[in-house]
Amino acid sequence: MLSLAESITDAKQYQRVNVMDIPRTCGLLTNRELEITENWDVRGLLRVIAEGRYKTEEVVGAFCKRAAIAHQLTRCLTEPLFDRALKQARDLDLHFQRSGKPVGPLHGLPVTVKDSFNVKGVDSTTGIAHLAFQPATENSPVVDLLESLGAVVIAKTNVPQAVAALDTCNNLFGRTLNPLNRQLTVGGSTGGEGAVIAMRGSMAGIGTDIGGSIRVPAMCNEIYGFKPSIGRVPYRGQEGGHIPAKGRISLQFVAGPLARSVADLGALMEHIVPRAELFEEDCIPGRWQGEFPARLPGAQSRNVTIGVLRSDGLVEPLPPIARVLDEVAQTLRKTPGVEVVEIPVPPALAKCQGLAGRLMGIDGRLPLMDLIESTGEPLIPWLQSRMGRGRELTAAQLGELQAQRSAVEREVLKMWTLNSGVERRVDAIIHPVAPHPVPEIDRYNALGYTSSFVLLDYPAGSIPVRRFQESDLELGKHMDAPVLGSWDKANRLLWDEKTVDRRVYLDSPLSIQVITPKQHDYELFRAMEIIDRAVRVPPAKL
Amino acid sequence: MLSLAESITDAKQYQRVNVMDIPRTCGLLTNRELEITENWDVRGLLRVIAEGRYKTEEVVGAFCKRAAIAHQLTRCLTEPLFDRALKQARDLDLHFQRSGKPVGPLHGLPVTVKDSFNVKGVDSTTGIAHLAFQPATENSPVVDLLESLGAVVIAKTNVPQAVAALDTCNNLFGRTLNPLNRQLTVGGSTGGEGAVIAMRGSMAGIGTDIGGSIRVPAMCNEIYGFKPSIGRVPYRGQEGGHIPAKGRISLQFVAGPLARSVADLGALMEHIVPRAELFEEDCIPGRWQGEFPARLPGAQSRNVTIGVLRSDGLVEPLPPIARVLDEVAQTLRKTPGVEVVEIPVPPALAKCQGLAGRLMGIDGRLPLMDLIESTGEPLIPWLQSRMGRGRELTAAQLGELQAQRSAVEREVLKMWTLNSGVERRVDAIIHPVAPHPVPEIDRYNALGYTSSFVLLDYPAGSIPVRRFQESDLELGKHMDAPVLGSWDKANRLLWDEKTVDRRVYLDSPLSIQVITPKQHDYELFRAMEIIDRAVRVPPAKL
Repeated sequence: MLSLAESITDAKQYQRVNVMDIPRTCGLLTNRELEITENWDVRGLLRVIAEGRYKTEEVVGAFCKRAAIAHQLTRCLTEPLFDRALKQARDLDLHFQRSGKPVGPLHGLPVTVKDSFNVKGVDSTTGIAHLAFQPATENSPVVDLLESLGAVVIAKTNVPQAVAALDTCNNLFGRTLNPLNRQLTVGGSTGGEGAVIAMRGSMAGIGTDIGGSIRVPAMCNEIYGFKPSIGRVPYRGQEGGHIPAKGRISLQFVAGPLARSVADLGALMEHIVPRAELFEEDCIPGRWQGEFPARLPGAQSRNVTIGVLRSDGLVEPLPPIARVLDEVAQTLRKTPGVEVVEIPVPPALAKCQGLAGRLMGIDGRLPLMDLIESTGEPLIPWLQSRMGRGRELTAAQLGELQAQRSAVEREVLKMWTLNSGVERRVDAIIHPVAPHPVPEIDRYNALGYTSSFVLLDYPAGSIPVRRFQESDLELGKHMDAPVLGSWDKANRLLWDEKTVDRRVYLDSPLSIQVITPKQHDYELFRAMEIIDRAVRVPPAKL
Repeated sequence: MLSLAESITDAKQYQRVNVMDIPRTCGLLTNRELEITENWDVRGLLRVIAEGRYKTEEVVGAFCKRAAIAHQLTRCLTEPLFDRALKQARDLDLHFQRSGKPVGPLHGLPVTVKDSFNVKGVDSTTGIAHLAFQPATENSPVVDLLESLGAVVIAKTNVPQAVAALDTCNNLFGRTLNPLNRQLTVGGSTGGEGAVIAMRGSMAGIGTDIGGSIRVPAMCNEIYGFKPSIGRVPYRGQEGGHIPAKGRISLQFVAGPLARSVADLGALMEHIVPRAELFEEDCIPGRWQGEFPARLPGAQSRNVTIGVLRSDGLVEPLPPIARVLDEVAQTLRKTPGVEVVEIPVPPALAKCQGLAGRLMGIDGRLPLMDLIESTGEPLIPWLQSRMGRGRELTAAQLGELQAQRSAVEREVLKMWTLNSGVERRVDAIIHPVAPHPVPEIDRYNALGYTSSFVLLDYPAGSIPVRRFQESDLELGKHMDAPVLGSWDKANRLLWDEKTVDRRVYLDSPLSIQVITPKQHDYELFRAMEIIDRAVRVPPAKL
């Protein structure tokens, strides 16, 4: 692997909290490699490859080099697949040379996948020592799907132990650091993707999300994450450490993309979504086109209506989080074609986080604890207070949990019709990704803001809005709203000046979450486009 | 209720096996009532109501009368809702009179629903004595949905004890008889719908299907049944006798329509499908339009490809069943725009029936047996050999069953791509509804031909093809194919001349099943249209 140590002689470079510009300044990448890795979005890069301006081999080579640099700064990779990727790239070039045509719509696109997906011949440890040195015997369906379209998987990326934390650290590959600020968490569980995509070591990647594992690292690394509905993207991969088919009877991990723009998310999803049903039995047919807002037959078209859901009813967002959400709502109010409505917090929403947690633990986490304890490896810090042996449920106890979930879904459904019951009144909702800014390592707190939308199976994406600035600090000003409960109390520790130096958040990314109803994934993409455009280019002041 | 006994003086009328023409000949219906109940399909009737040619009150009144007659001949109803329906009809007329417009696209359509759906104020016993005299406190979502469109529910219809049989008999309402031949089974569990729709006592109805309960009575009564994918039609209703949310963790009852033509199925589904997601949390967004066959973006359109799947690998169809399927395949081969391919029976298909049965029994049927035994009522004949107390599973045992289901789904998925894995090659499949003709009462046998497509969540519909005729009898000719197993052996008892008089099948309806991939419900409808048209109007002989 390329050694950054040899190229960097200034010790201060290693101590810097923000390492984003090192790939450009370290001297390991040629000007052409910088051009290849920095000048294009997904569709742009695909176009110039298809025009023959770059060979796939040099594109893949440039991204492998940059991923290697990113890895040395953040430990973002688990399995580099550089040799395999370069061979695939040469095969793609050969095909292009012979036929004059790309093999598919993603011909030559360098991508990464979370470690939990299988790539034949290398491990899928999911950060558990016991699972090392057991190479996968076949690819996960999403890897086959991406490769059938011409994409090249250049590396697998780091995850927390057992893919079970919102920070990314394990005893096999160490801790992935946040390239924007190595004091802050990179997020998890798709943390390796977050770092490598932010550093342009990969054009885009595929993660999985059950408690927020796509949206949280997207937020932490200032990129875009898209958690689809169940069945939109093949998710099947390493499932060691759980009872068989756990997702089918409890809560289901959902696979989805992380990328550097809404357009890049769409550039992947437009090809994955219509094909997913052919690659995995759990997937559903899908289209990546249509009217937005979608209307009942014969109904009049109208403005896009965006709801503002300010809290999950369990944890009060900290002041900068509430402020950013409000700023986005204000911007949308001034955006032509958009109507903004306030969504009263459905009382049932506050039940989601607890239910999601209980559903994740229906097997008492016994198979997982067995696997972890079999090698004597310790639990990672984030899990030490959160993971332990429970009790396996009976079918009736499990059914009771699912019945509670149904009842919650039924209540929250009314949010979309503004209680009319017969007509959709809200097309998309904006909501915090978390009730706090990107915290320091191992301090990520409430996951209800993200896990709820897996429980409800609502597509949800995250969009970076702006950086945390001096005026957000409000030094000396306390939150005086009454504490809602233990989760809320824990969240305030991330703002209480006795327990945190708020200045640690300076310049960190602040994001929002966008949500649409179940299986309205294309509508989520369209809503993210509208909101992202409005936020990037604020409308002229009146 | 109108008494048929007073109008029929000839005792032979009561002994007749086929009672289909009694509503017309008994003298209880006026000419105008016969015209209303006999001259229209769903869209035709809706049109003449919307034109003001009939008042809703007289339409609803005519169907209530005819349903009452049908009931006296077949015991098809559980809860007549005639007073409620006539009041709703008068309200609809008043609205129409005042506004000049129908309240919705199904304004004035008389429909029926299976007893398991709740209608506020009347029982939903599901054929269990314990549940009598406990009126529902609210409507099932599908009842609300139908009524929001202007439809009028005129009655609830009979089901077997616990909705658990493919015959329709219980200790509260008795046995529903088949109006085409009262010696043969009416089918189940949506048997009451089958009889009342066949006799034109209702324009269409909503049933539920987990083992074949829509498709089997459609077959037995020579009408059309449509079992959609999970989530297309709100199914929620009486769930007494099961652990909570059992459908979410095992096998899910699916709701769908029964009607007298493919067009009538479509006339309901086109309005239900796009609205279902607003009425029930388990429902998914859906469109009732599009290209068929559906193609990947950029792919060339081609002929509709229909696969012929001749067996489930577990039970060999009896000769008339194999013959009818083959006749339809031959007809389709001569149909312009249609290509026919043979589908080798996927070995995994033979595992479906057993898996479906085990998934239905994950709670050991303990809550159900408790409920039935609490009143001392006996099990109905069909259930006596099939129902008993089992063992409740643990979460891990349940997961193991679902993992086996996933593996089966994965194998059977390849059927649609003809093992190519990346491109859909088959648009729809024809298959028997059952491996035997409509049998005598309580002799319905293998349910794998229908339950498999609930396990796989493939939309599946049944189409009547032709009547059983003299030439199908093959008297004296034995089946000589080797017996495949115990289910196959039991099936042959319905053909072995030592155990059945084959002449009992004479003039009974023979149907086929049509199947499409998961969530391709609109494509099922389109395939059924093509196949039904081809079968009704055989192409000119070459």
